[in-house]
Amino acid sequence: MRMLDIPAIQSMIHSIGLASFYQRLITQLEEDFKNWNNFYKSPRHAIHYKHGVIELMPCSNDELYSFKYVNGHPCNTKKNKLSVVAMGLLASVDTGYPLMITEMTLLTAIRTAAVAALGAKYLAKKNANSLAIIGCGAQSEFQAKAMQAVYSISHVNIYDIDASAMRKFSNNLSADFSKIKCCNSATQAISDAEIIITATADNKNATLFTESKVPSGTHIHAMGGDGPGKTELGISLLKQSKLIVEFSPQSLVEGEVQQLDASHIHAELWQVIKGEKPSRENDEEITIFDSVGFAIEDYSILKLVYEISEELKLGTEVNLIPDIDNPKNLYGLLRI
Amino acid sequence: MRMLDIPAIQSMIHSIGLASFYQRLITQLEEDFKNWNNFYKSPRHAIHYKHGVIELMPCSNDELYSFKYVNGHPCNTKKNKLSVVAMGLLASVDTGYPLMITEMTLLTAIRTAAVAALGAKYLAKKNANSLAIIGCGAQSEFQAKAMQAVYSISHVNIYDIDASAMRKFSNNLSADFSKIKCCNSATQAISDAEIIITATADNKNATLFTESKVPSGTHIHAMGGDGPGKTELGISLLKQSKLIVEFSPQSLVEGEVQQLDASHIHAELWQVIKGEKPSRENDEEITIFDSVGFAIEDYSILKLVYEISEELKLGTEVNLIPDIDNPKNLYGLLRI
Repeated sequence: MRMLDIPAIQSMIHSIGLASFYQRLITQLEEDFKNWNNFYKSPRHAIHYKHGVIELMPCSNDELYSFKYVNGHPCNTKKNKLSVVAMGLLASVDTGYPLMITEMTLLTAIRTAAVAALGAKYLAKKNANSLAIIGCGAQSEFQAKAMQAVYSISHVNIYDIDASAMRKFSNNLSADFSKIKCCNSATQAISDAEIIITATADNKNATLFTESKVPSGTHIHAMGGDGPGKTELGISLLKQSKLIVEFSPQSLVEGEVQQLDASHIHAELWQVIKGEKPSRENDEEITIFDSVGFAIEDYSILKLVYEISEELKLGTEVNLIPDIDNPKNLYGLLRI
Repeated sequence: MRMLDIPAIQSMIHSIGLASFYQRLITQLEEDFKNWNNFYKSPRHAIHYKHGVIELMPCSNDELYSFKYVNGHPCNTKKNKLSVVAMGLLASVDTGYPLMITEMTLLTAIRTAAVAALGAKYLAKKNANSLAIIGCGAQSEFQAKAMQAVYSISHVNIYDIDASAMRKFSNNLSADFSKIKCCNSATQAISDAEIIITATADNKNATLFTESKVPSGTHIHAMGGDGPGKTELGISLLKQSKLIVEFSPQSLVEGEVQQLDASHIHAELWQVIKGEKPSRENDEEITIFDSVGFAIEDYSILKLVYEISEELKLGTEVNLIPDIDNPKNLYGLLRI
């Protein structure tokens, strides 16, 4: 089986280019969301500790099985460690044999941003070209770059309570946007935005901006609220907006919509993509994609990365699965 | 983080010796079963296909988190592949960072056999010295060797419908037992046994031998029945015997006891080990450990293997988790 480590994924993104990688990934996600009903789906398996959570996110159709191991330890940043790290596995359903293990910290950031772009493709105004990002943590640059895969975005307003995080963002993406404006408040940042991304880390019920400050016709990608008690938007804004989620049973526990109930959900994203439910209907309404992350999204990037690793001959063969002549003679492996 | 592949595990077993490895593992299992109530436990996560199953088996206490990926595809042997392969991961609960990934096909066979020995230690007659094994598949030699860690067993009767599997067993273990007798039937094999291991693979409700042929005072380790509709012993034998399981909610679905109900379970193994429920009470009763495999057993061997890999400096460092100065600057990894 194949192993893709951090250098292999870096090499893959460099070879293809992040922009092209996003294009392929959004296409893959679109295809998999259209096949939503052919997947074995279940809420993630989580063990909650006082200081964090460790999760397994499995998913499968009749061809491939995937899962991701991922943690969430907000206190890690104080130890100079990432609060979220991840690893993924892809296996053949035919034999149950693993095909690939891979780093998935980078891939999670990339797929999370590609899902934001996919949502915005269906929900934001046509020709949207201004973006605001609230929260300049580890996800923020990935999000901004992904939006460029679906809209011609030349300027971004950013806001973070940590000024050094804004400097980091500006420094990383100075060549990608004609203007990056560091704002003094979330309200200032969203004042002329057609797409707003909320990507804050605080583990509480926050209200990043009041509803009256949200420009008419805006699409909000709300991704920072992704656990019980961790939300970013106020109830009155949610109630006035067209609310889209990934997988209702999970979103009602983890998403912004945990503050309301299922009756406030307009659609799951796959229904909008398949045309079973309307997307944006005019240039005035506010749309919100209340995204918490779902296992099919990991499946999509694992499948794509496996294919590209074949094309580019990337990765290392590792000997983690016995290859023996007589399957009944496993013990023979200890006699060599 | 560390990776232990097949050669690393082979090297570990060769350095320590399988017999000593079993001793250490049984001690570790005993310790973890005694701490049963300190573990976060859940039934395994399984996706069932027409031709097989893929499972994740997670488990944790406040120090370490472990999970195993494992499949079950009986039809694989026709393709000259193993029907069960596995991989494992151990992580720090403190940070959520993975510490180790490892091959786990060999380790699953080893831990499954060590659990059999642990059960027999508490449930078989003192000074038991004759063993019968029904089913000489991939598990059989591991089981026989593990029993030697707790009893002085010099001779083994074996039976399998496939004569070549019996030859393979005899060939692998000829130096370990003074006598290995290939029998013509399960009934012949068990005729003078004090410990019986049933390890057959057929996916059906079987009765490997009738209750009247089981010698008085025998301990039966029933491990082949481990899924819905897959059992090895008849109901009347189960009803007459002292029945021990690992984790009742799982065993009632997957074990021999799926043919009965919870009222027929004498105890969970940890209760016997801690002395909360009686083990064997005389030399006449028949005891049955209806073992299906549980995630704590994987935890135990992963913890032990991690410790030994430290002692022996085994394994390879792999770069699957980003190591960066500024945890908010994940995007910087793509700019190098």
